[in-house]
Amino acid sequence: MRIKRLVLLGTGLIGGSFALALKRAKCVDYVVGVGRNPANLARALELNVIDEASDNAAAAVVGADLVLLSTPVGQMGALLQQIAPYLPLHCVVSDAGSTKQDVSALYQQYLPQHLSRCVPGHPIAGSELSGAAAAQYGLYEGRRVVLTPLPESATESVGLLRTLWQACGAEVFEMSALEHDGVFSAVSHVPHLLAFTYMNALLDRHNAPLCLDFAATGFRDFTRIAASHPEMWRDITLANKSAILHDLKANAAQLAALIECIESQNAQGLTEQIVRASTARNQWGRKSR
Amino acid sequence: MRIKRLVLLGTGLIGGSFALALKRAKCVDYVVGVGRNPANLARALELNVIDEASDNAAAAVVGADLVLLSTPVGQMGALLQQIAPYLPLHCVVSDAGSTKQDVSALYQQYLPQHLSRCVPGHPIAGSELSGAAAAQYGLYEGRRVVLTPLPESATESVGLLRTLWQACGAEVFEMSALEHDGVFSAVSHVPHLLAFTYMNALLDRHNAPLCLDFAATGFRDFTRIAASHPEMWRDITLANKSAILHDLKANAAQLAALIECIESQNAQGLTEQIVRASTARNQWGRKSR
Repeated sequence: MRIKRLVLLGTGLIGGSFALALKRAKCVDYVVGVGRNPANLARALELNVIDEASDNAAAAVVGADLVLLSTPVGQMGALLQQIAPYLPLHCVVSDAGSTKQDVSALYQQYLPQHLSRCVPGHPIAGSELSGAAAAQYGLYEGRRVVLTPLPESATESVGLLRTLWQACGAEVFEMSALEHDGVFSAVSHVPHLLAFTYMNALLDRHNAPLCLDFAATGFRDFTRIAASHPEMWRDITLANKSAILHDLKANAAQLAALIECIESQNAQGLTEQIVRASTARNQWGRKSR
Repeated sequence: MRIKRLVLLGTGLIGGSFALALKRAKCVDYVVGVGRNPANLARALELNVIDEASDNAAAAVVGADLVLLSTPVGQMGALLQQIAPYLPLHCVVSDAGSTKQDVSALYQQYLPQHLSRCVPGHPIAGSELSGAAAAQYGLYEGRRVVLTPLPESATESVGLLRTLWQACGAEVFEMSALEHDGVFSAVSHVPHLLAFTYMNALLDRHNAPLCLDFAATGFRDFTRIAASHPEMWRDITLANKSAILHDLKANAAQLAALIECIESQNAQGLTEQIVRASTARNQWGRKSR
């Protein structure tokens, strides 16, 4: 498995770290980084993350064996549209988007003749850092990558992505885009949204500054994700709307049940709810990192 | 300020660390530890946390200058009732309960003749450890203690507690019990309850084990407090019922507004909500530990 020409559409932390890991594993010969920020591309060249920089996605994919879309999901539709006429027949296309039903629909829309070579994916890795300067060998060591093949994805295309991500040190899983979006709504998207709503309810208090002054470690950890990037989370929320709405409504129902329990002084019911949550979280803590 | 006889009603982490700090600061001559667990009291004696052990609160307070109630709040009413007939006139009584309106009411109920000597308090310190063996010098160094004096509390009683907590290295604040309970509902009690309800909504999913398998660092921090002690949190919730219900309903309203925003694809409204939360959390992070 050797990629002669890898094209990164988006040359930041995610794409850059993929290129570095594949170079070290001797799985790739030549990397072209496409992006809109010349300073970022210059830094990527300087750090040998990429071998060539380009601001033209269509020209860059000519002769490519693998294209990885590693921009925010909101830019992927336009990029797929630009590269469609220039994509070599054998070239495999994948992405690193954190929602998968919407990206799958973009492949269907813009590359309908090329679907056997398309493999949507999601590396579960990241950092508060961004940009090519943050790209690092080893970002994917021991991390997980979820592939969500299309019905049309060819076995060998999926196998290529699996092999390459494994060469980066990652553990590769497959599930449907629907299942992926449900899982990540539940364990990532919804906690972020609940942390935002909690902060806003707190800010509405007449004595919010005093409250924030006495907030301690429990608050710190519970709200850490509320500091996340607004545009990114707006996009994820709208992209994964139906799974997120399902989970938010389930949370609203749980909250209503809790309020009912407290209002009726139902100590037994309250204990049962807390014990259920606490038991599950303690079990998870013992199994996990 | 020198206490000849300090009586701890409850000889665990909180009371034991108070005694150790006051001994080191030479503010106390003799410490009596009261408790129901003989092994714990034996350990407290062995570690010189206390100088005398007792299972009889009424007998222990005879000759006391200061009594600190450092049991769970649920045991404080019975203890106050037991000691009431034996409490020396000059003896100051305080506590370390994490809710203050309910404890204030207990002083009013059981020590109506003694209120000038009663000073409700809440040291904002703790640990996942408990028991006398966990007591440590320095637990209160740089931590905060909130005193919530009763209308009847004498200035010199409040001053004594202030001086002693400062001798433990703590920073002392005063506010009303009502304000205290509002602040700690907002920044501590409600985050715990929201973490419980989130866990329970997740557990209701048909694919909960798969979700938990893919849960990562955001989930870990957001739910850390969901692993907390069920009985303790049931008691706090019922003790601070009205402040907590106010905040839970504010959270339910925020959640309903968010759901409405997402359902109507209101990207602008969604952005505003996220920016508000994210800005405030980033500001807090820069100011705080």
